[in-house]
Amino acid sequence: MRNIRLTLAYDGTDYVGWQVQPNGRSIQATVESAIHKLTGEPAKLLAAGRTDSGVHALGQVANFETGTSIPCDRIRFGLQKHLPGDIIVREAEDVHSAFHATYGAKQKHYRYVIYNSRVKNPFVRKYAYQFSGKLDVKSMHQAIQVLLGTHDFRCFESHFPNKATSVRTVNEVSVDRYSLCPTWFYSVSDTPVPCPNGKFICLDIVADGFLYNMVRTIVGTLMKVGRHVWTADDVRRIINSQERAQAGETAPPHGLYLVSVDYSYKEHE
Amino acid sequence: MRNIRLTLAYDGTDYVGWQVQPNGRSIQATVESAIHKLTGEPAKLLAAGRTDSGVHALGQVANFETGTSIPCDRIRFGLQKHLPGDIIVREAEDVHSAFHATYGAKQKHYRYVIYNSRVKNPFVRKYAYQFSGKLDVKSMHQAIQVLLGTHDFRCFESHFPNKATSVRTVNEVSVDRYSLCPTWFYSVSDTPVPCPNGKFICLDIVADGFLYNMVRTIVGTLMKVGRHVWTADDVRRIINSQERAQAGETAPPHGLYLVSVDYSYKEHE
Repeated sequence: MRNIRLTLAYDGTDYVGWQVQPNGRSIQATVESAIHKLTGEPAKLLAAGRTDSGVHALGQVANFETGTSIPCDRIRFGLQKHLPGDIIVREAEDVHSAFHATYGAKQKHYRYVIYNSRVKNPFVRKYAYQFSGKLDVKSMHQAIQVLLGTHDFRCFESHFPNKATSVRTVNEVSVDRYSLCPTWFYSVSDTPVPCPNGKFICLDIVADGFLYNMVRTIVGTLMKVGRHVWTADDVRRIINSQERAQAGETAPPHGLYLVSVDYSYKEHE
Repeated sequence: MRNIRLTLAYDGTDYVGWQVQPNGRSIQATVESAIHKLTGEPAKLLAAGRTDSGVHALGQVANFETGTSIPCDRIRFGLQKHLPGDIIVREAEDVHSAFHATYGAKQKHYRYVIYNSRVKNPFVRKYAYQFSGKLDVKSMHQAIQVLLGTHDFRCFESHFPNKATSVRTVNEVSVDRYSLCPTWFYSVSDTPVPCPNGKFICLDIVADGFLYNMVRTIVGTLMKVGRHVWTADDVRRIINSQERAQAGETAPPHGLYLVSVDYSYKEHE
């Protein structure tokens, strides 16, 4: 059997999320169906992150086993023919049989996009959280530094602790303004430089793992910092409290993007 | 009676176009309904350009007469409350009773966006024409210069001549690459500088008026120039032929944007 690794970008708007749900189309089922049509075999797709309904991906990673002899470039092309335009196969490659998209992930990069303008923008309504009030991005950037390192992040986990441990290590964080949305672009070279008066605020966070709704709760908490309701010290207090009720609201899903997944630190050393 | 001028941005994806049609929601009817709800009066909205189904606007201009005494800033805010998120009222202002959005327009700026990449992008599929082949943008830019000035553009008019004259004056044209999409942004200061390796190709055209499907047919013609099937001389020959059959195909609507409308040359002198 071959083990195929896919890199996927998708617009999560019209899906119930990555995982198969009773109430609508899932990304997973849609891609599995395309694999079945292409190879003639049923497939089980494993993903790095199970994105929620409305959440997008620029670089989701998934893998599946197959007996097909179709070469990888034609797998990419062939799958795309069976997929709608809101799911794009960016890459397909043969990988070692031990590669597991879920368990092998060393770190993931999530981005949350806020469109901060007095007047709304019809083209970002499904792709950014529109907020018209003033936001102090410098304070938000300062406060998010509190998250760096290894902490018990259960204060940012929605509903109930659904993982064995709520300790995670956050490796990189930033909050900055951009004049053009650094979201719909794949390669790092396309990322624009920050712009002090830009309308797009991006919150970037790289960690070895994420709890359920963690990024969206961090965003809800930092929105209060941006509005000068809370400070970096409050964020520290909230983490130490280990209580979800202390943190801010869960920000809406449509501003969230799974940007990329790393399977080896060495690539980035 | 007051005369109110609106500046509108909209995502045309889910509409049959500006004008009321039997087969679905129109932008015009949706905004007219919001005016009725806000003022209690039925309203007749006149627009600068009657955009087709799927065509977008960053700065459509429209006006209506009303007896309401609601101040303009509250008209903007109040209309928005009755409008869906894909139609945004950017501005509302009192204007002279003689102002007519359709007949008073001195020139309009349309932009056509092509996403030119080997791998498709799920986030632009309703907002740009995705083309994976090579396009020589310098040749396209050169060829579009042929349009400058006053010509009979009936070769670019779809279906049948539906205006009294097909002579129009083109004032500005350009074709260039950008690394980030210069479309979802309103103010000129947000427009990025061209980038030689950018994936977004924008065709900008400013004219005193446009024939039915004119920009989309120009784009279809220039695509052939970009693919080295035709040259600038062919574009000249096509204009001189005055035959629609000589020109290229009509490019799809979802790459097209009405960027802005000018009502006085003086502002730009």
